[in-house]
Amino acid sequence: MLTAHTIKVLQSLDKKKFRQKYNLFLVEGNKIISELPQSNYKIKEIFSTDPEKLDLKDISGIPVTVSELKKISFLQNPKDSVAVCHLNEESEFKEKDFQIVLDGIQDPGNLGTIIRLADWFGIEQIVCSEDTVDFYNPKVIQATMGSFTRVNIVYENLVDYLSQTDNQNIGTDMTGENIYSFKKPEKINLILGNEGKGMRPETEKLLHESVCIPRFGKSQSTESLNVSMAAGIILGQLFSK
Amino acid sequence: MLTAHTIKVLQSLDKKKFRQKYNLFLVEGNKIISELPQSNYKIKEIFSTDPEKLDLKDISGIPVTVSELKKISFLQNPKDSVAVCHLNEESEFKEKDFQIVLDGIQDPGNLGTIIRLADWFGIEQIVCSEDTVDFYNPKVIQATMGSFTRVNIVYENLVDYLSQTDNQNIGTDMTGENIYSFKKPEKINLILGNEGKGMRPETEKLLHESVCIPRFGKSQSTESLNVSMAAGIILGQLFSK
Repeated sequence: MLTAHTIKVLQSLDKKKFRQKYNLFLVEGNKIISELPQSNYKIKEIFSTDPEKLDLKDISGIPVTVSELKKISFLQNPKDSVAVCHLNEESEFKEKDFQIVLDGIQDPGNLGTIIRLADWFGIEQIVCSEDTVDFYNPKVIQATMGSFTRVNIVYENLVDYLSQTDNQNIGTDMTGENIYSFKKPEKINLILGNEGKGMRPETEKLLHESVCIPRFGKSQSTESLNVSMAAGIILGQLFSK
Repeated sequence: MLTAHTIKVLQSLDKKKFRQKYNLFLVEGNKIISELPQSNYKIKEIFSTDPEKLDLKDISGIPVTVSELKKISFLQNPKDSVAVCHLNEESEFKEKDFQIVLDGIQDPGNLGTIIRLADWFGIEQIVCSEDTVDFYNPKVIQATMGSFTRVNIVYENLVDYLSQTDNQNIGTDMTGENIYSFKKPEKINLILGNEGKGMRPETEKLLHESVCIPRFGKSQSTESLNVSMAAGIILGQLFSK
């Protein structure tokens, strides 16, 4: 049974302010929920229309009706279960040799896709500027398809961080070196900018190099690839070497 | 001024049945609309909240209010203008040396993203199975960011086509040859399957080879990359050689 108070609290969790207030976020769907026990994330409770199907060791689902689940789900088509989880304490930030750095990514789908890419390529850490969309946003969590449990995501002042890193700061822009001939440095921060505005000038000043994906089509359109697609193609290249 | 009848017709254009009945589809936003005059697509009329900004030679926008535009737009946040365009007659299908072949792609966002990728890499033609989502779907058109004007998209019986093509039929699956060592044939059909089910068995039988993107992460998750992201990474590799 869901009380009116619980519904109100859970519905508020699409806003960062309330996720921080209650120290909670939501994970939806048995498939992603089943990855939580192998991660650092602690489940508070799970509401499920079919608790038998959950199959988790230490926690059993609280049965709810389909219409109750609809009230707490942020999905257009709610799945079988909604897990209420505790936010992780921010872990100490230790630099890794291959990091993705995000300078102001705003679209939750893009952040989710980039987290999923990081997981695929075995990149352990993503460093986000403080104005990058919060990864506990329900749209980000869903777009990661569970990958947020395997990638460490930290929010830092990028100017401070990038000016004292041991990694090579590699930007992505249309005037950079062709990614097909670019020599991958041993330690790398691959920096991706905001969807509309790109990297901030303060960030650009701290780059050691830039790369670009050459356009093969004859199109004279000024439209570039979406940032998460560009990230995928660049990572595909960097890992081919 | 928008008549009630026009509103009703335009609102019906999210369904293939009505697009075909009226022989019309919608393109939204001045930026994409401005690419139409360089294409084969013929504009019937344009409704705009700010016709002055349109800047097209042979057609002027019909002024509408923001609330009128909302009624005919399929976007959550309607843009400045909506262009009503005629469907193109299906052009004769002539095989190209590098084609993307789609076997049952259902998600409009994925098809739109793949059309945008084709444009970026200069791939002139996409061959779709008859059950692939219609590219005139408004969500597809928006996701292409205008690229649908530069890529020829045909719908064919894939079994018939793939059994008599001169191109090499290259599938994509988790057991295929590593894309990083794969030698690109001169003439290629890169085949991408349905989001959930992959390629149909009938299609798989007609493959000459398959490729895969190796996973570098330690994750044991069964989750693969999204089909449009996989397409981007594979195309990035194929064009690097």
